[in-house]
Amino acid sequence: MGERFGVDRLSEADARRRTGVKWAQPEDGVIPAWIADMDFPVAPAIVAAVRERAELDLGYPVWLDRPQAGPLAEAFAERMERRHGWRPDPEHVRAYSDINQALQVLLHVMTEPGDGVALHVPNYPPFLETLAQMGRTPVHVPMRPEGGTWTFDPELIDGRCRVLLLVNPHNPTGRVLTRDELGRIAELAERHDLLVISDEIHADLVYEPHRHIPFATLLPERTITLTSATKAFNLGGIRCSVAHIGAARARKALAAQPAHLFGAANLLGVEATVAAWRHGDAWLEEVVGVLDRNRRLLADRLPPEVGYRMPEATYLAWLDFGGLGLDEEPAEFLYREARVMASPGPLFGPGGPGHVRLNFATSLPIFEEILGRIGRACTTP
Amino acid sequence: MGERFGVDRLSEADARRRTGVKWAQPEDGVIPAWIADMDFPVAPAIVAAVRERAELDLGYPVWLDRPQAGPLAEAFAERMERRHGWRPDPEHVRAYSDINQALQVLLHVMTEPGDGVALHVPNYPPFLETLAQMGRTPVHVPMRPEGGTWTFDPELIDGRCRVLLLVNPHNPTGRVLTRDELGRIAELAERHDLLVISDEIHADLVYEPHRHIPFATLLPERTITLTSATKAFNLGGIRCSVAHIGAARARKALAAQPAHLFGAANLLGVEATVAAWRHGDAWLEEVVGVLDRNRRLLADRLPPEVGYRMPEATYLAWLDFGGLGLDEEPAEFLYREARVMASPGPLFGPGGPGHVRLNFATSLPIFEEILGRIGRACTTP
Repeated sequence: MGERFGVDRLSEADARRRTGVKWAQPEDGVIPAWIADMDFPVAPAIVAAVRERAELDLGYPVWLDRPQAGPLAEAFAERMERRHGWRPDPEHVRAYSDINQALQVLLHVMTEPGDGVALHVPNYPPFLETLAQMGRTPVHVPMRPEGGTWTFDPELIDGRCRVLLLVNPHNPTGRVLTRDELGRIAELAERHDLLVISDEIHADLVYEPHRHIPFATLLPERTITLTSATKAFNLGGIRCSVAHIGAARARKALAAQPAHLFGAANLLGVEATVAAWRHGDAWLEEVVGVLDRNRRLLADRLPPEVGYRMPEATYLAWLDFGGLGLDEEPAEFLYREARVMASPGPLFGPGGPGHVRLNFATSLPIFEEILGRIGRACTTP
Repeated sequence: MGERFGVDRLSEADARRRTGVKWAQPEDGVIPAWIADMDFPVAPAIVAAVRERAELDLGYPVWLDRPQAGPLAEAFAERMERRHGWRPDPEHVRAYSDINQALQVLLHVMTEPGDGVALHVPNYPPFLETLAQMGRTPVHVPMRPEGGTWTFDPELIDGRCRVLLLVNPHNPTGRVLTRDELGRIAELAERHDLLVISDEIHADLVYEPHRHIPFATLLPERTITLTSATKAFNLGGIRCSVAHIGAARARKALAAQPAHLFGAANLLGVEATVAAWRHGDAWLEEVVGVLDRNRRLLADRLPPEVGYRMPEATYLAWLDFGGLGLDEEPAEFLYREARVMASPGPLFGPGGPGHVRLNFATSLPIFEEILGRIGRACTTP
């Protein structure tokens, strides 16, 4: 596993040479498994594209100020069609720094303070912060454990809402919503006249036999699709994400804003993204193989007291430490006793306390060390 | 000239391999001298920094969401201190895609539609478009030819204004405002309680014996300084610029906005900028030598009917074709008759008709060809 690109052979010493926040944040000797960066180096095709661009020309690109007419929009449309049978309209693509900027811009132009925004909880902490900071009212749709998976009551998406913020595949549970679930959500979105903002950034990290279904295929004229190559290709710093604005009223509202107020797509981020989407799939396949192995290893190796439902997508495990009877949040316990830094559950909102989100996007040697440490901490009284 | 980095040896065939909008826009056989990109390849120190970053880690950087605490702000502060004796506070730095985004954000949070904004005319077309699009009222301060230079009446900056938008060094005339001129402007800004937004992006391209004086050294608590490495180091596509928010009320207004609404600094743009500012000066010196030679060549070689005042900074020449008695705009005449694409004067606002802005940031072989073509077109009846 991980032979061609060697991602599974990465040692802890290799990973410690990385300079980003993931490895810099924890104190010496603690292994990071928190923020959603992977430990693997960037795919060679992406490194080459960035280098060649820098050597050739970093001036104003031909698609200057119109990313919808450039290679980003076209590569996005091609990828959606090839992988999901959905052909977006490149002219409806806008570029933002990241998904959270796109969300803030859309809430800014399409809603008012006090407006209700439905979302699953637990959820990605920056989205919860965005709603709080912008004074939009969260309408929580709890993810409930049921057998080996998670379910929710879609009827909670009701007339209190103006927007549905979907995160599918879901962070942190890793659920990939089925066609039935999405169909029910689409009915409710129609009934309550909702704008649907669908964050699909984890769509490239779905495990067999699950299938990602773009929400825009269900309600094309109501949906804004947000995605980026940054998650599946480990490019969090490049600040390049795509918004496909299927809803005509959102395109109109955006067009009424000053043209440069929200910034512009950066050339190197665009080059990296296009290289990832067009030439990165062999690397991605190897990485997904490693991640798939890791999600199964977790099932085998976690102490039985720790609740774990194997994610259907993403490299994030949502772990319930309630069975351990700790008198502190498990992230604190793991940091101190296991020397592993996971993301604290309470940051993810309702349903979060007593949980951690563990990032398993790392090589076998490092993941074996993480699993061993957690196992020993949980069995040592 | 141009020996170490070879910038002056660039052939037209070399330049035509560039992929950006400058060379892509004109039809076959036309030489572009319009948009403010240079024809020179990126400095090796910048290419190396971008490549090394891509090879090492493109994940979330340690300064995640806080560029003011990262290398961008520190490199900016060091450079201002070393070159201009001004020590900015890195904590007051914010990052934007480009100068025009920064301007739009500041006008958005600090002014209302109808508010007056003083600025020299002619001026950078995107700024004129920003004022029109945002409904702010331009208060024109005309640049008047006087002998070999340009002057203006600062008393036009008066109580009609809430903001002074300074472009210094000035685009398109290339004036570098003197301490006396800046001092008079500062008195008026104080008297009329103006916020000063000072675009100093051309400050690295000032010719001896002129000296760039940051406006923030005159009125630190009233001034927002905007700059970027993109102009002097030919990086228009990287989308990384710096705003130093000296005015406390502007910092307060920005802090009240949703934290991600205006986007975030991109890692590769930051790496390129830091490399430029810390390791690019040998390259810059060679480039400025070539540009200085070119601005003198223009004085020697332009037809006598063409009005030309040698710029004190920048690689942009503001040329007056009024003496030629053309019955069309000179940019059209040059495109058709000289096969040279310059920027049409009318885009630059009042004072623009009858002029073109000619970009002379190119090598000797290409510039000789441009000069020959213009000379022949102007002397052929």
